[in-house]
Amino acid sequence: MKIVRINVENEDIRFEEITPDSKYFQRGARGLSSQIIHDEVPPLCNPLGRENKLIIANGLLGGSPFPCSARTSVGAKSPLTNGIKEANVGGRPAMMLARHGIRAIVLENISSTLKLILIDEDSINILPAEQYTGYGNYELHTKLMEKYGDNIGIYSIGPAGEYLMKSSTVGANDLEGYPSRHAARGGLGAVMGSKKIKAIIIIPPKTSKLKIHDIKKFREVSSPFAKELAQTKERFSIFGTSMMMAAMSGYGGIPTKNFRMGSYDKIDNISGEKLHELVSARGGKKRLACSPTCVIKCSNLVVDESGNHITSSLEYETMALNGSNLMIDDLDSLAKIDHLCDDVGLDTIEFGGTMGVAMDCGKIEWGNAEKTFEILDTDIRNNTEEGQLYGNGVKNIGERLSAKRIPQVKGQGISAYDSRVFKGMGVTYATSPMGADHTAGAAIANRVPSQHKDYGELTKNENKLDLSFELQIYTAIMDSMGCCYFIGPSYENMEILANAINAMYDLNLTREDVINIGIDIIRTELAFNEKAGITQEMNDVPEFFRNEPSEPLGLKYTFEKVELKNFWKKLDEHKF
Amino acid sequence: MKIVRINVENEDIRFEEITPDSKYFQRGARGLSSQIIHDEVPPLCNPLGRENKLIIANGLLGGSPFPCSARTSVGAKSPLTNGIKEANVGGRPAMMLARHGIRAIVLENISSTLKLILIDEDSINILPAEQYTGYGNYELHTKLMEKYGDNIGIYSIGPAGEYLMKSSTVGANDLEGYPSRHAARGGLGAVMGSKKIKAIIIIPPKTSKLKIHDIKKFREVSSPFAKELAQTKERFSIFGTSMMMAAMSGYGGIPTKNFRMGSYDKIDNISGEKLHELVSARGGKKRLACSPTCVIKCSNLVVDESGNHITSSLEYETMALNGSNLMIDDLDSLAKIDHLCDDVGLDTIEFGGTMGVAMDCGKIEWGNAEKTFEILDTDIRNNTEEGQLYGNGVKNIGERLSAKRIPQVKGQGISAYDSRVFKGMGVTYATSPMGADHTAGAAIANRVPSQHKDYGELTKNENKLDLSFELQIYTAIMDSMGCCYFIGPSYENMEILANAINAMYDLNLTREDVINIGIDIIRTELAFNEKAGITQEMNDVPEFFRNEPSEPLGLKYTFEKVELKNFWKKLDEHKF
Repeated sequence: MKIVRINVENEDIRFEEITPDSKYFQRGARGLSSQIIHDEVPPLCNPLGRENKLIIANGLLGGSPFPCSARTSVGAKSPLTNGIKEANVGGRPAMMLARHGIRAIVLENISSTLKLILIDEDSINILPAEQYTGYGNYELHTKLMEKYGDNIGIYSIGPAGEYLMKSSTVGANDLEGYPSRHAARGGLGAVMGSKKIKAIIIIPPKTSKLKIHDIKKFREVSSPFAKELAQTKERFSIFGTSMMMAAMSGYGGIPTKNFRMGSYDKIDNISGEKLHELVSARGGKKRLACSPTCVIKCSNLVVDESGNHITSSLEYETMALNGSNLMIDDLDSLAKIDHLCDDVGLDTIEFGGTMGVAMDCGKIEWGNAEKTFEILDTDIRNNTEEGQLYGNGVKNIGERLSAKRIPQVKGQGISAYDSRVFKGMGVTYATSPMGADHTAGAAIANRVPSQHKDYGELTKNENKLDLSFELQIYTAIMDSMGCCYFIGPSYENMEILANAINAMYDLNLTREDVINIGIDIIRTELAFNEKAGITQEMNDVPEFFRNEPSEPLGLKYTFEKVELKNFWKKLDEHKF
Repeated sequence: MKIVRINVENEDIRFEEITPDSKYFQRGARGLSSQIIHDEVPPLCNPLGRENKLIIANGLLGGSPFPCSARTSVGAKSPLTNGIKEANVGGRPAMMLARHGIRAIVLENISSTLKLILIDEDSINILPAEQYTGYGNYELHTKLMEKYGDNIGIYSIGPAGEYLMKSSTVGANDLEGYPSRHAARGGLGAVMGSKKIKAIIIIPPKTSKLKIHDIKKFREVSSPFAKELAQTKERFSIFGTSMMMAAMSGYGGIPTKNFRMGSYDKIDNISGEKLHELVSARGGKKRLACSPTCVIKCSNLVVDESGNHITSSLEYETMALNGSNLMIDDLDSLAKIDHLCDDVGLDTIEFGGTMGVAMDCGKIEWGNAEKTFEILDTDIRNNTEEGQLYGNGVKNIGERLSAKRIPQVKGQGISAYDSRVFKGMGVTYATSPMGADHTAGAAIANRVPSQHKDYGELTKNENKLDLSFELQIYTAIMDSMGCCYFIGPSYENMEILANAINAMYDLNLTREDVINIGIDIIRTELAFNEKAGITQEMNDVPEFFRNEPSEPLGLKYTFEKVELKNFWKKLDEHKF
């Protein structure tokens, strides 16, 4: 496997083989991107300047048949948090890159004109892309597939990324051919935009260049695990992540009216069950895989009343932050918001959080879906003054409107779990090197990082520091394998990962060795952040979660600031 | 003397007497504002939110006849640097506040409607100010003087502050009645704007409530010092700060073409000598005091060919950053830029730096003064999308344009001294808790913090860490006295300040005691910044000063990163 470094300015391309003695040998996806950022990006550089690097990497298990292992990590210094950032995404292209023998693409420097990168069987070419200036992802992908074939893989940015908006995404095309998958958090689309790379196109190779050392031993690990996952995640497959809408509202922890409340009285209008009915009735699709090797298949495809595609995979976070959080109680509106965000290339979580602040400040009335469409389709698409107000995230709009309630940590908008209710998630938001990103250690109901420990009740502080800590370490490992964390970031699964890695790379790693990879990744990220001024002092949620009790449960965020500040001292002492 | 705390939301006003046992007793101006911010403002709060406080304070010698002692410090958590900030300013109002017996006004919370604060003989009133929405400072001051009398003192914001632009200022009216004096750096106008206070109006009191314990002893200190200053600063009085234009270009250290070069071939067109001729020929004014008690009188008043007022005090920093830095070689254009900045309430330094980045990126051609007027007079005044691009400082535009050369430190634009040439100033930029603010420790030619030490040649690193360190401490003391640093931040003058303070407050402070006040102020500011994520790791100038030699001298910035990072360890060990 190799790393491909592309200087986008002078178009110099260098290849770096990852050999067993390379420092990158046991670093995939997030582990690799964080290591490169740590080693090579000046922590105080302009995230949209030439010193930042954008890394697009698949994982240590990428390209293999291991279940749910074909995710892409996108990493850079984030323009939103000013710290280190990794966002991962499904879709087609990670598997294709791995089959080309490419573990990572590193975009360096900045270009002055818009370009495409085309990866073919034998060559990598950089082509002018001015003709695609301002294109939405949907139109762009259609044109690229017309030109390069229907089965290509694509990473791309929409207009939001071109305009360097700090909520912008790096999109990837899904298995059905739509640009519905997004490495959304942290504004990494703006980093790609600053480098003026509109898209990376991958023509699938005829044969895979990826090698698995002992395929028989590998299958002995991966096949039973795949079977078990497919069985245990059955309900999740049917309803997808949207099934959490009613559940989270029931727990009193779904963001409602800019996190004023935790339950939404109209939740049944926008629940997963309702979406399931609607998709079934209109002939949409369910139980779709977001990427090759996925056996969980939590994705869906939503069509309008005439059967035309609106969006692929309407997901819980999008629905909660743009639904209950904005008091929009209509699934078609949520599907349209999702479509528009995918098209302009904007993070649905950050956007929903941003709109929540605007509505809370009285700039827009609650529940006004039409205005939301207009902001996405007109203002952000055309980079108007309003577009800049709404395209740069929760913190930016909160500061510009002098808002009282700004749901963000370290510059990144909070995901769709109220930290007063879901105590473990509240620890993750406060402490993750990634800002308020639920995927960094998603301590939701029934996610248990170890079968032999008790992590206490969901809504109580008890043992939640340990819970979040373990999840964050295990998730960093999942993220470095290229695996979806839905397969379970747990002590038990670390053994399975060790066995798979050993078979693939002819190694003898123990479970503890694998855990140490996760610890190293987190240490690397924290070290970068410390130098970038993102210190442990910043480990906290916004003050209003401490002062305003959640409704209806009356819970507050009550972790001591000092325990959050000292959280990562566990790296030296924690017993797994 | 008392502190007046005004809750701008519920209009509650509280008075706090500063008694000898108060922790604020030996804290004036910057010393007081930094202490209040440190003690009361959450370091990670939204600088434009309700938790930030805006402090407007005069100094320990404010209201006395001590020379050049009637300056105002404005302080808050800065929206530009996200760290602690003090910017000081001359003008009328500090003396008036002191005579009212008011040491500081603290604006707390945020209002939802635009308001005025009116300070009268016996009362403080909060009045609606919606009728002044969007007013420039010039029109605003005219209306306020019509209504409240010609001899009022005013602090105010222009439209840039109302629109929360991060380069906006808090203006003060000068002795001639124009809104020409600005606490300009750090975007503190946006903090006042976030609190929705358009202006603070002070009706001068009939008699002074300020007490000087031993006026005879006080005059024995201040009178000979005033006389000496008036004599030694004679040349400075005649030409003002603009005399530095030719000198700095001669040294090879005036910012030219966005800090590409250090000398400007057309410097004679915009020199202090040329300005002196022009002001004399047109019947402008020179040798004006910026505030009461000033004996140096470096200010001027520039009129157009018909004798109409254009701007008061066209100063070196404004002329360099908008002149040579933008390749604009015409004094009338510079006077107009100064006027417009004063009117919309924008920092001329930050604005010149911002335009330099825009021109360097090819957005505007070099030397296009008309476009500069248009941006100020149309875009910033009316808060257009372009206005937001140009009104939020050097770092913001640099990031948005992916600029290579972004002259800023810790979010604040670099002042008009090239850090490759003026090595001591380069240390101040890198290390000051205030970001790249020359006034924090202005190590220019012939400024010697002690007569008995050798600080080496101007353009060599030798002893410049000591030079900047001592200047920064002494300047913090000057700033807490309410004194202009042109009186000399030196070891020798610390004795004079101690004597003046002793006579005024019936104290027995030694020179060392006074120096310790400065050390305490800096420690307080660094402690706040550390918690706000503005760490010692950030002590550096932009990389291009290290990589690109200055023209014509061929000098680079060569301080080691580690010596800048450890700079403030001197606080524990330095021998004064």
